[in-house]
Amino acid sequence: MTHRFTLRVYYEDTDLAGIVYYANYLKFIERARSEWIRTLGIDQRAMKEDTGTVFAVRRIEADYLQPAKFDDELEVHTVTEAVTGARVVLRQDVLRDGETLFTAHVTIVAIAETGHPARLPANIRRQMH
Amino acid sequence: MTHRFTLRVYYEDTDLAGIVYYANYLKFIERARSEWIRTLGIDQRAMKEDTGTVFAVRRIEADYLQPAKFDDELEVHTVTEAVTGARVVLRQDVLRDGETLFTAHVTIVAIAETGHPARLPANIRRQMH
Amino acid sequence: MTHRFTLRVYYEDTDLAGIVYYANYLKFIERARSEWIRTLGIDQRAMKEDTGTVFAVRRIEADYLQPAKFDDELEVHTVTEAVTGARVVLRQDVLRDGETLFTAHVTIVAIAETGHPARLPANIRRQMH
Amino acid sequence: MTHRFTLRVYYEDTDLAGIVYYANYLKFIERARSEWIRTLGIDQRAMKEDTGTVFAVRRIEADYLQPAKFDDELEVHTVTEAVTGARVVLRQDVLRDGETLFTAHVTIVAIAETGHPARLPANIRRQMH
Repeated sequence: MTHRFTLRVYYEDTDLAGIVYYANYLKFIERARSEWIRTLGIDQRAMKEDTGTVFAVRRIEADYLQPAKFDDELEVHTVTEAVTGARVVLRQDVLRDGETLFTAHVTIVAIAETGHPARLPANIRRQMH
Repeated sequence: MTHRFTLRVYYEDTDLAGIVYYANYLKFIERARSEWIRTLGIDQRAMKEDTGTVFAVRRIEADYLQPAKFDDELEVHTVTEAVTGARVVLRQDVLRDGETLFTAHVTIVAIAETGHPARLPANIRRQMH
Repeated sequence: MTHRFTLRVYYEDTDLAGIVYYANYLKFIERARSEWIRTLGIDQRAMKEDTGTVFAVRRIEADYLQPAKFDDELEVHTVTEAVTGARVVLRQDVLRDGETLFTAHVTIVAIAETGHPARLPANIRRQMH
Repeated sequence: MTHRFTLRVYYEDTDLAGIVYYANYLKFIERARSEWIRTLGIDQRAMKEDTGTVFAVRRIEADYLQPAKFDDELEVHTVTEAVTGARVVLRQDVLRDGETLFTAHVTIVAIAETGHPARLPANIRRQMH
């Protein structure tokens, strides 16, 4: 039940310390979430255009264990930890050659066009069953 | 008639070569354009909400002369080179202590909500007169 | 003892949902930390060049309370929550007109050129006394 | 002789206008150049570590023809237009479903650890022959 997503580290991701800039791990795991959502059969673009609903991160807890470097091939592992009608908690790890570099718990909600919370799509709520 | 905008280089702007990543100069000059537009009395947010119109870059020619580095204080100079009803060409330079590090000619258009070109706001068209 | 840093939201910071992209709050608070470190009399560039030491984030817990939008003027508040020889925990809030939009607890360590933890500079260790 | 590189547009790439932020096309074509350089058998990381040499963009001319959008699958086409001992000019196009959205001429140089220009690696100089 783990979703796997592979990416490469490019110049844009690094900083002068020669490693991936800390905010960019949040980009990496968001890419993985977008691909995970696609595998659930959810079209985020259509969802936004048809219903005005978008996903938003409500909370993140992240540990930076080892730095990723330029040219690294990384894998993002995404698993569902908890789902309610209104929110899903994911665990997302970034690995290089099987070693975990970054690990996060991410709470996702759906936001209606009004800015208020919306019910999560059924395909996501079904994840824990 | 030169608009001046000051910014600091932070970690996020640098790459592993220890200098500002090349795409980020486009962020710097866009910040300066946003501030220049504000000084012309144009509220980009209201313009988008009221009329659906946004500014877009149509063309850029840029020379990278010297690298900016972490912690540098940079100044962006913006001058209008040409204006027609539909587009404005700006020259934008990025300087450090009076030395030009980056220089660009940037062609801006206005885009209506339909995706088609829109007439530039009068305050911008008036720039050359 | 709260350090305050003001910034403007530009196009680069937003995403298609019309709000600040979630990873970019980490850029905002890193800018504030860089300015806070400067006020402590620490020159990060010299520290890196002279001793090879850089600061790194070891852990972050962040809550996204309300979205920031294009053209918003934001204020980052930084306070020291705990300091030991090897790490400092900061609380960093992002506010708009006095309302907290984002709040984070950030654990910072110093990393020597070897990649191993280094002792924090005395000016930082002195923060809690 | 055209190098092709495929990428997906994610949230991080878009702005409030609902399209890819203009600076991010420079990230896309830099990813493509990194992959193109890899196919030439050049290891940029080893090159930097062993000789201190990095590639840098000296000049870019870019036309923004049509906007890319969230979730688009894009292809970057890279071809060599000119090579001398010290610089290579590439043409890089970003396409969606065969339609060119962005086209650029990019001048690349190699920079030695001293900050001075270095001779391009032979594998790159050989591209035009």
